[in-house]
Formats: sequence, C-alpha cells, structure tokens
Amino acid sequence: MSDTVLLDHGSGGLASRKLLEEVIYSRLGNPALAEGGDSALLAELPPGFRPAFTTDSYVVDPLFFPGGDIGKLAVHGTINDLAMAGAQPLALSLGLILEEGLELETLARIIDSIGTACREAGINIVTGDTKVVPRGKADKIFINTSGIGAVASNCVLSPARIREGDAVLLSGTLGDHGITIMTRQAGMELQGDLQSDTRPLHRLSAALLKKLGGDVHVMRDPTRGGVATVINELLGGGLALEVEETALPVRPQVQAACELLGLEPLYLANEGKMLAVVQGERADEALAVLRSLPEGEEAVILGHIHREEKVRTASLILRTFTGGRRMVAPLQGMALPRIC
Amino acid sequence: MSDTVLLDHGSGGLASRKLLEEVIYSRLGNPALAEGGDSALLAELPPGFRPAFTTDSYVVDPLFFPGGDIGKLAVHGTINDLAMAGAQPLALSLGLILEEGLELETLARIIDSIGTACREAGINIVTGDTKVVPRGKADKIFINTSGIGAVASNCVLSPARIREGDAVLLSGTLGDHGITIMTRQAGMELQGDLQSDTRPLHRLSAALLKKLGGDVHVMRDPTRGGVATVINELLGGGLALEVEETALPVRPQVQAACELLGLEPLYLANEGKMLAVVQGERADEALAVLRSLPEGEEAVILGHIHREEKVRTASLILRTFTGGRRMVAPLQGMALPRIC
Repeated sequence: MSDTVLLDHGSGGLASRKLLEEVIYSRLGNPALAEGGDSALLAELPPGFRPAFTTDSYVVDPLFFPGGDIGKLAVHGTINDLAMAGAQPLALSLGLILEEGLELETLARIIDSIGTACREAGINIVTGDTKVVPRGKADKIFINTSGIGAVASNCVLSPARIREGDAVLLSGTLGDHGITIMTRQAGMELQGDLQSDTRPLHRLSAALLKKLGGDVHVMRDPTRGGVATVINELLGGGLALEVEETALPVRPQVQAACELLGLEPLYLANEGKMLAVVQGERADEALAVLRSLPEGEEAVILGHIHREEKVRTASLILRTFTGGRRMVAPLQGMALPRIC
Repeated sequence: MSDTVLLDHGSGGLASRKLLEEVIYSRLGNPALAEGGDSALLAELPPGFRPAFTTDSYVVDPLFFPGGDIGKLAVHGTINDLAMAGAQPLALSLGLILEEGLELETLARIIDSIGTACREAGINIVTGDTKVVPRGKADKIFINTSGIGAVASNCVLSPARIREGDAVLLSGTLGDHGITIMTRQAGMELQGDLQSDTRPLHRLSAALLKKLGGDVHVMRDPTRGGVATVINELLGGGLALEVEETALPVRPQVQAACELLGLEPLYLANEGKMLAVVQGERADEALAVLRSLPEGEEAVILGHIHREEKVRTASLILRTFTGGRRMVAPLQGMALPRIC
C-alpha cells in the first residue's frame, strides 16, 4: 500500500475499500459503520422524542494544534450543535475530502483522534464518505460531520423565549481556541500552556436541562464570531445585556495576545463553551449546575438582560473598567479563515 | 456586496449572515432553515419507523455539465443513499466549502439548482454550514449533503438476504453520468444529447417495496465503481451473476465513448440508477413496477444469481457476444477523480 493518499483511493473500487478497511474502519470500528451500506439505520427513538439534525464542515489550519486537531474538533463541534438544541447526540457521520498526496500516517492520526473523541463522548460514527481531489485542489483534508440527536418533543429552546430579567451564563473562559489557532497561523509562540478548549458539551447541557427544565430559554456555543455575535443574534427588540469588562473570564495569555494583536476577546472563537440564557431567578442554581461538571468549572454569570430603548447598533454593552459603556456589535470585517 | 466570495463570508459574523440571507435562505427558504439555530428539529417519526442516516461529499469537476450540476447531484445522491436503504427521505443538510474568489453568481446558480432539486423531490434542506478557505486551497466549491430518512423497523434489506435464484434488476442504462463527466474533463465533445442521469430514486424504491415487500432483498445505486463493483460487493460465498453482454442497457454514445477510451460500461458511475436484488419468482412483477415510473422505464432484468463453485476473482461474469465468459472484478487501478 502506498504511504500517501492516491486518486485511486477515491474511485469507489478496491483501493477505496482497502483505505476504508485499513485506515478508517479499524480505528472507528462499530457494527453500523462496518456494514458499509449506503445509509446507517438507527434504533427507533423513544416515544416523545424527535430527531435533531445538524452539520458542520471543518477546514482548520493547522490540522494539529495544542489541545486538539481537526478530527477532535469535528466530533466535538457537531456534538455541541446537537447539545445546544437540547438534544442528546445519537450518531455522527463522517465525510472526508482528501488531497492526493496526504500522508496516510497523518490521516491515521486524525482518524485515531476522531475515534478517541467519539469514545470519550459515548457516540459513534455510523456512516461516512471519502472523496479524493487532485494535488493542489484542496488543502490536505477537509472534514464534514453531521449528527442526529434525540430531543424531548416538549423541549422548546428558542430566542423567542428570552425575557427581560433573564440571566446569561457562560461556561468558561473566552477565546482559548481562537487565540491558539490564530497565533499558530501567525507563527507566534505563546508562553505558557494555552490550548484550544475543544470539548463536548452534551453532558453540561443535559445537566442544566435536567435541573432547570423549561427555565432554560436558549443555549448556544459561541464558535466563529464569538460571544458578541451570539448575543447580538439572540437579543433584539430593545433587549440588551450589559457586562462588566472585569467580570469576563479571560486567561492572561489570551488577554495578552488580544492586546498585542488588537483583538476583542468577545469576538474570539470558542470550541468548548456554552452560553445559556435562563430564567433570572434561577441564575445561581444554573451556575451551580455548570460548576459541578469539569467542563463548566470556570462558569460565570455574565449578567441579566434589561430593556434599553436606546439600543441601536448592538445588544451587547461592555462596561469598561474605567466606567465607560461600549457597544459591542456583531463581528464585522475580520477575515479569520480556517479557525475551525 | 462584493460579487465574489470573500474570506469574511466565513467569519461567522455579519458578512456570513448577509451571505446566508441574500444567497442561500432566499433560494432554499423554509422555516426550519431560516431559524438559523445550531440544529434543526424534525417531527417525531411515526411508531414503527426508525431513522436512516447518510452522508456524501461532492467534488465533481466541472461544476456544471449536461443534465445537471454539483448542486443537483448533491441533492439526488443523498436522497438515493436513503432510498436504497428502504427509507423515505425526511430532511437534508447542506455543508458548503467555498474558495475565496468564487463568483457569487456561480454560487447562486448552484443554490438555485439545489432548491429546484429539493422541490422536485419533495424534501427540504433544514440545516447547513458554510466555510470559506483562501484562494488556491480548494477548487471553487465542495458540497456535503447528509440526510435523514424514515425506514419501517421491519424492513430488512441486506446482502445477507441474497439467495441462489434471486433476480437482479437494473433500472436503466449504464454509465450516462460517468461518460458525461469524463468526456468533459478530457475536453471531448460528444455528438448527440447524452447527459448525466442524475435523478432521485426514492419514488422508485418506495414503489418496489410497496409491491414486493420483504421479497426485495437489497437495493443499491451503482455510483463510483459502477455496477461491477456493487455486484462484487454484494455477492460472495460462491454466489455469482452471469449477464449477457448484449442484454446490458448502454446508450450508443456511451458505447462509442467506451470503445474510444478503452472503458468498461460496467465500471462507469451512474447517478440515477437502481440495482435491485429480489426473490427470483417475482422478477417480472418487479420489472413491471420499475417500468411503470419514468425513472425506471428502461429497466431490465440483468439475470438470476447462481451458485458457481469455481468463482475466484469475481462474482460478476459477462457472457460476451462471441460466446466467451469473462470475469468482471471490482474496479481497480482506475483513477477517476471528481466524478461526483
């Protein structure tokens, strides 16, 4: 067998089958995937549950970075999109676009990482597809994962449920993933041990829903565009959130990199953080639930939503440490390619 | 708005939203998609049905070809993977990887085509994702579609159900898609009106299952690798299929191109053909069902499965018009990049 990906590996014939069996099935092995049919069949959902469905492509550069790699990201990101909809993930798909010439060792390392991330999250890749494009027509590997989850039919999470007085919680620090990737892309070496926060959030969201039930109004994972973009998308109609700048959880290395590069932590991508809007009186309970799990141990209450008739350009207001108030609009005009 | 795709369109911020609203939602508009959440929520499946799940990435070159384009292919291909599992498609996802500099007009044309294909098939794109990579890091556009379908829990289609005496049917001509793409890639102009056979097969598979029930043993769409690869994957353990070469449905232009290029029609990719293995005595009924729908009007019975102890290298045997017998092994060593 060649030690790089060949065009023939995408032909659908014998070489494709060999690649699947030797590099992929052996690392992700589970009965549904190894059947190799055109579709995977899942178990019937329990009564009172409906399917949630999501998709994400991953084009991150570099492929490997402190705290993770493109494979781990692809598993966690899609799990998190299901989790934020209130769903428990049931199964993932894996679509690979490979560039001719990719080292099979690199591919194997990524598939290993996907396998590990799946096992840790308790979810399987049940169906997949592999395409190969000629050298120079892609950049090593692009990954799509889609996911199916089960969500209780009476679970209604929606921005439309957000009310004045609701509390906004964030499960941990801002921008660890964004700064990790951006500094690598720029060839910068950060001091310390900053790494991507990539992490599955389905246990955290399930714990919050179990405790607060219908008092959870909406959950989001602030990936591309960051917390500022999510808050601005969620709020409108005169609702706004005011946050104390000093209350934002930001690691010192992230803060330092932001100052050096002129970036705003509220725009940075996160890959393992949950933003939850809950009924205001239950904020402390929600905080306790988040902090009870490792993935939420640095959770904070960002603030409570208020009505602000004068809001024009943004629904997120930052109260700076000098006492000023600054509107933080959705991300605009920052080209951040291949952050995830 | 720029008239090409910019890196900023993949940032997750305002430019991303504008692209979604102006180019994508407006063309695919349906409530689930326009909600813009991280996941789409589907209706509960009826009792006695379970979810089928599939994924495919599309990297076809050229993007537009006689009979279709990458968008139409992406809708049909994923519908067909669900249909071949006995499922009725419920919803599709759409993952776009765009190269910086792609003309927005080209993107709009592809999304239009996706919208038309969805409407014709009676299925919606309910969730999506868009990434942008820098110029030279992809080739214009790659598309992933994943799909969810509903399959009756008592529907058991599996190669394990194939028996001696079963009939193998093919719903139409061989290789229309493969030859259409390969001749374009080679810069050849074919005479006549040959075009890709890209087409949704869910109505055909549903009609066959409705009529024959459990006497349908397995269905497959012979895409990459063609009919020969599928037959060889399905059969084993001494089972083989012998086909009269003259009985193979091949259009004259496809036959001519195969002779010119030294290709075997049985290896060519199809994007709108179904191969069905059914209980032998019901072959004529199955043929009548297939021929009753436009997508199956050129259907044929390829032959019946027999036991052949001497089969070694292949399970598909071609009886040539000179009376010889030729083994047709799975596709091997033919690099056919970007055929779908």
